[in-house]
Amino acid sequence: MNQVAIGIDIGGTNTVFGFINREGKCLVEDSIPTQKHGEIEKYLEELFSEIDKHIACFGPDLEIVGIGIGAPNGNFYNGTIEHAGNLRWDGVIPLAQMVEDHFKVPTFLTNDANAAAIGEMIYGGAKGMKNFMVITLGTGLGSGIVVNGELLYGHDGFAGEVGHMLVRPGGRHCGCGRRGCLETYVSATGVKRTAQKLMAKYREESVLRDVPFNQLNAKLVNDAATGGDKIAIETFEYTGQMLGLALANAVAVTNPEAIFLFGGLAKAGDLIFKPTQHHMEENMLNIFKNKVKLLPSGLKSNAAILGASALVWKELENDEKFLNKTINHA
Amino acid sequence: MNQVAIGIDIGGTNTVFGFINREGKCLVEDSIPTQKHGEIEKYLEELFSEIDKHIACFGPDLEIVGIGIGAPNGNFYNGTIEHAGNLRWDGVIPLAQMVEDHFKVPTFLTNDANAAAIGEMIYGGAKGMKNFMVITLGTGLGSGIVVNGELLYGHDGFAGEVGHMLVRPGGRHCGCGRRGCLETYVSATGVKRTAQKLMAKYREESVLRDVPFNQLNAKLVNDAATGGDKIAIETFEYTGQMLGLALANAVAVTNPEAIFLFGGLAKAGDLIFKPTQHHMEENMLNIFKNKVKLLPSGLKSNAAILGASALVWKELENDEKFLNKTINHA
Repeated sequence: MNQVAIGIDIGGTNTVFGFINREGKCLVEDSIPTQKHGEIEKYLEELFSEIDKHIACFGPDLEIVGIGIGAPNGNFYNGTIEHAGNLRWDGVIPLAQMVEDHFKVPTFLTNDANAAAIGEMIYGGAKGMKNFMVITLGTGLGSGIVVNGELLYGHDGFAGEVGHMLVRPGGRHCGCGRRGCLETYVSATGVKRTAQKLMAKYREESVLRDVPFNQLNAKLVNDAATGGDKIAIETFEYTGQMLGLALANAVAVTNPEAIFLFGGLAKAGDLIFKPTQHHMEENMLNIFKNKVKLLPSGLKSNAAILGASALVWKELENDEKFLNKTINHA
Repeated sequence: MNQVAIGIDIGGTNTVFGFINREGKCLVEDSIPTQKHGEIEKYLEELFSEIDKHIACFGPDLEIVGIGIGAPNGNFYNGTIEHAGNLRWDGVIPLAQMVEDHFKVPTFLTNDANAAAIGEMIYGGAKGMKNFMVITLGTGLGSGIVVNGELLYGHDGFAGEVGHMLVRPGGRHCGCGRRGCLETYVSATGVKRTAQKLMAKYREESVLRDVPFNQLNAKLVNDAATGGDKIAIETFEYTGQMLGLALANAVAVTNPEAIFLFGGLAKAGDLIFKPTQHHMEENMLNIFKNKVKLLPSGLKSNAAILGASALVWKELENDEKFLNKTINHA
């Protein structure tokens, strides 16, 4: 019998899904475009049909224990996607219920950064840790915070919006309508904006000066920095400075054992890790200095769907823990 | 039988203790000076002797279920006071163990802001809340954060240092050796510094201009503001602006149901609540706007020792909850 959890990661471009067993092995992976359909019903029709095909291939040997979904603005408490700016479906979508109605197995939904944190705890570098934080560096900056071994959801299910901490009041305009949010500086988009700003400020030659703003991206800045481009190197230094200060502040609030950097920008390696580590320690309160590990994510491939599927195993584990307690003390 | 927890609050000036029953009634309260003795042993000798006297007065009808201690730089995990800058005892003091050795009852220790948060949960305005935050506004700014019904201690037991979030890098010098910490702006000391700065900036007459820096305090600024003094009113406006922004950022991380303001400065009422509320909402991320309650502490008198004693009831409650679970599911 193949016992699996289905992990579904709803991204702005693609929806990726996979069948993951308890050991974190991905038995099958596939995807559909997220934004083809304006109506959520049509989108789900396509998604269900694709998943059902794969289920049929496995035959009766497959047991699906549950489904985990990572989605932008996902609310764990309600199983809803709420007002996700970068998706075509407006308002509040009761997605977990819609998926559960079709597959008839327990379905959990949370935002993508929380899914990444649970993935890190179940399959990645945070195994055995009770207090840690995952920062996802993509188009924006997301965060998943684990406290006492449990994800921090907060009162409304929206905790962990570290990317929307105001670090420069009156600063860069943010998609949320405010100004100076951390993610306007620290994210793939933030890197692009910083590179552009530094080109305006300095006179140094740079290969980036031949790229129009709309074609500029973090990958190009990364490549330029690796080639020794001063503007590009300074861009990462500035990004790390902003991130390091923000992490020192986040540590003062939640005192984690480790912070994991996850996502495209984290793959820049030393370019982002070195300045971040330096400025984090420089700004750290004495009692935390040299105590908090800054680490790359331990999830190597299929990270997003591993995280989503881990939601299921985590909930099961909570059930088991509870049963064990009862047995031991009854 | 009088079942009580002993609450001990170790302040910079006085150590106050009381015998508190489960309903939060204080049966007796007394105090000794904290800083009379340079040696911790002498200090404890005096404290034990005073507490023992009161125990003797009650006779055999008294059952002490435990002792809770709130102390600066108190570490819950280790039961220690660690490098407390404003106490005379240097290094790491295993205080909980020393107290437990004498009284032979379970003894718990945490920092004063955490004790305030637990007091708020057991006896105060946070009854029934699972996610909230207490900000203590005294000489400094402390914070106690409750998440999923449990205090957030973090990996090393030092979570909740909101007062040491850097809000103005390179700004005011802080006792921690860094610059720009929130508590250099938002605290009784912060109010004094702001008043001084505004007197330097503006030309308006103010009763505060006749007070030397060393005699200036938050109470005088409060009285002046109540009397319509513009410098004093602007001082509270600025303090609320800094606090409101910081709270909006803290909400983005932990998404609490409510934030309680506790301590001397919170007694300034509208003077501090109105600007704080205004700037908190103004800087709040959309999904949190008009959702988080800003409230005065619900602990009216004996707040510090109530909080310390609540540590004991909280631990007992956890035990009971656990037992109930076992019984229901066995």
